[in-house]
Amino acid sequence: MAESISTGQRVRRDKVRTALAPLDVDAIVVSDLINVRYLSGFTGSNAALLCRADAAGDPDSIATDGRYLTQIAQQSPDLPTTIERDVVGALLDAARDEGLRRIAVEGDALSVAAYQRLAERFDGRLELIPTSGVVEALREVKDSSEIDLLTRACAAADQALATIIADGVLSPGRTERDVARTLEWQMYAHGADAIAFETIVATGPNSAIPHHRPTEAVLAPGDFVKLDFGAVIGGYHSDMTRTYVLDHAADWQTDIYDLVAQAQAAGRHALKPGADLRGIDAAAREVIAAAGHGEHYVHGLGHGVGLQIHEAPGIGSLATGTLPFGAAVTVEPGVYVPGAGGVRIEDTLVVTDGDPLLLTTTDKTFTVL
Amino acid sequence: MAESISTGQRVRRDKVRTALAPLDVDAIVVSDLINVRYLSGFTGSNAALLCRADAAGDPDSIATDGRYLTQIAQQSPDLPTTIERDVVGALLDAARDEGLRRIAVEGDALSVAAYQRLAERFDGRLELIPTSGVVEALREVKDSSEIDLLTRACAAADQALATIIADGVLSPGRTERDVARTLEWQMYAHGADAIAFETIVATGPNSAIPHHRPTEAVLAPGDFVKLDFGAVIGGYHSDMTRTYVLDHAADWQTDIYDLVAQAQAAGRHALKPGADLRGIDAAAREVIAAAGHGEHYVHGLGHGVGLQIHEAPGIGSLATGTLPFGAAVTVEPGVYVPGAGGVRIEDTLVVTDGDPLLLTTTDKTFTVL
Repeated sequence: MAESISTGQRVRRDKVRTALAPLDVDAIVVSDLINVRYLSGFTGSNAALLCRADAAGDPDSIATDGRYLTQIAQQSPDLPTTIERDVVGALLDAARDEGLRRIAVEGDALSVAAYQRLAERFDGRLELIPTSGVVEALREVKDSSEIDLLTRACAAADQALATIIADGVLSPGRTERDVARTLEWQMYAHGADAIAFETIVATGPNSAIPHHRPTEAVLAPGDFVKLDFGAVIGGYHSDMTRTYVLDHAADWQTDIYDLVAQAQAAGRHALKPGADLRGIDAAAREVIAAAGHGEHYVHGLGHGVGLQIHEAPGIGSLATGTLPFGAAVTVEPGVYVPGAGGVRIEDTLVVTDGDPLLLTTTDKTFTVL
Repeated sequence: MAESISTGQRVRRDKVRTALAPLDVDAIVVSDLINVRYLSGFTGSNAALLCRADAAGDPDSIATDGRYLTQIAQQSPDLPTTIERDVVGALLDAARDEGLRRIAVEGDALSVAAYQRLAERFDGRLELIPTSGVVEALREVKDSSEIDLLTRACAAADQALATIIADGVLSPGRTERDVARTLEWQMYAHGADAIAFETIVATGPNSAIPHHRPTEAVLAPGDFVKLDFGAVIGGYHSDMTRTYVLDHAADWQTDIYDLVAQAQAAGRHALKPGADLRGIDAAAREVIAAAGHGEHYVHGLGHGVGLQIHEAPGIGSLATGTLPFGAAVTVEPGVYVPGAGGVRIEDTLVVTDGDPLLLTTTDKTFTVL
């Protein structure tokens, strides 16, 4: 297992080399910790990776600090390691000593303050080239080991939800907070290493708040209850939303639920390799707008999901680019009627040549609990 | 309550104005989300705050996106709000339209890629001045509302640990993961809004890894069990570590425990307003070095704690500056013997004129469970 993972990470670093070619640089120093993990397997909280443009020369190398001596030997046994707190500075020092001159850095991960300090320190001795999205673009396309982890993370969330429904947790009298904690506990019980993001449980009028933090609000008959939650397994995040009605449903609730379900299906059906990202968003948005609820749908349709809960590609009305084969994305339209309530339905899916692979398999039929 | 919090945040923004005076700028755009929260109360995931150097002119203002329309009205009712996804760009646009010229930005929060885009967009129309630590320096000194929340967060962690010990959870046969999840569940049960960081439970040889992720490793008689964990209440983090021995202790375990306890006491006693940060670190480090374990203590003595689990001031051998009155910090020396086991003892304390205020009150006597 360790062998095949190291190999997979070397394959990823080779793809970085290919991506570096048009930049005419000698190497890239990767300092975004998620990108470091993706390319090396190392999960510590301070690290950077030097990835060379030329695979034929010295090997790539990694830097971290003394807290992680044991961990880095276990997680990245194939990479020469520098132990120093200033990880980017240490790798640039080594690069300069070897005669490298033009080094790409990650412009989105490096702060302007850190960049200015480095530019001053290496002035005239290294040329630092801020880049954007080099590794993030590679991460859009998931390999089979990643899809396996995503599948397991989604299954843990599905199973947790099924358990709390079977246990009657989604019932009048419980609080949003209590439901959130119980759902999280069940995700752990079903194999989650961590919770993917702050669990949203929103009841009644709170369901009209797209990102609501659970409160002591008590679930009541006739409420919409919206649950947006996910599990992490092996670093990979799941993301799903389901909305139920408690005890009895009013007509307006059935209407907006059906509308969101229809929009969500349209969004899922638009997930094709090469599809324009804005077009995918529009496929779902037009359904909601045509029903007169356009102003009640205030966010994008979805986002990539993987080592981060939100990653490329974003699927929204301002997105650019197309959807690659093998991307893992969410599809999550919503309609939020302020003061009354809201519905969001969200799945995590993988883009294939045929129908997208649905990882969150909990039923989406309108359900009164 | 809302009234007094808004007032507290206006007081904080007035302190920012004082801090801006030597920079000769018209305003600062705060884009670090923790700093935005500190100065406005807003907790959404996309926001920036314009804080003016001159309090007499237009009021400060805040920007966020459409997802947070309801939330920002609740959390920051006193601040004029701009709704736009590019929050920094929107505030800079408004600043330019009003004739402001020199605007400080947060150099540690703004990526070099984002800074370069803004510098290009406002070229010749605004002068952007990257700054470091303006708000972070103010956050070092906690006000009474912050100390209250820290106290409650530390109490939740203390109570959770007491409960799992009383319930016999720290016993041979349990796994690290199981202990971690049970401890987290108990923190929630004792009022935590969230878990402060990835809970560390490390048994036997794993206790020699300073930052160990819980595994399926089974607790065994004679093991050191190290627990490093914290709760979040109202955004404020607690941080504590305790190390126990299971069933029976060997002499080497008693020896290194006593040594770490002695070093930790030395560190706590060195927490005085105005004390040199390196000197505080040295007070504890010298105890461990004198016993010949210097190489087994591979990290700094402590760090500030508040809205972030790690914040200023850092207390380590490379730190600069002094400890302010009212700072909340950890004191957490450790001795880690690779392959055998390790001990860390950590408290969260507030610096006062007399003895520091101990917020994590769990007993630190050597204990065999």
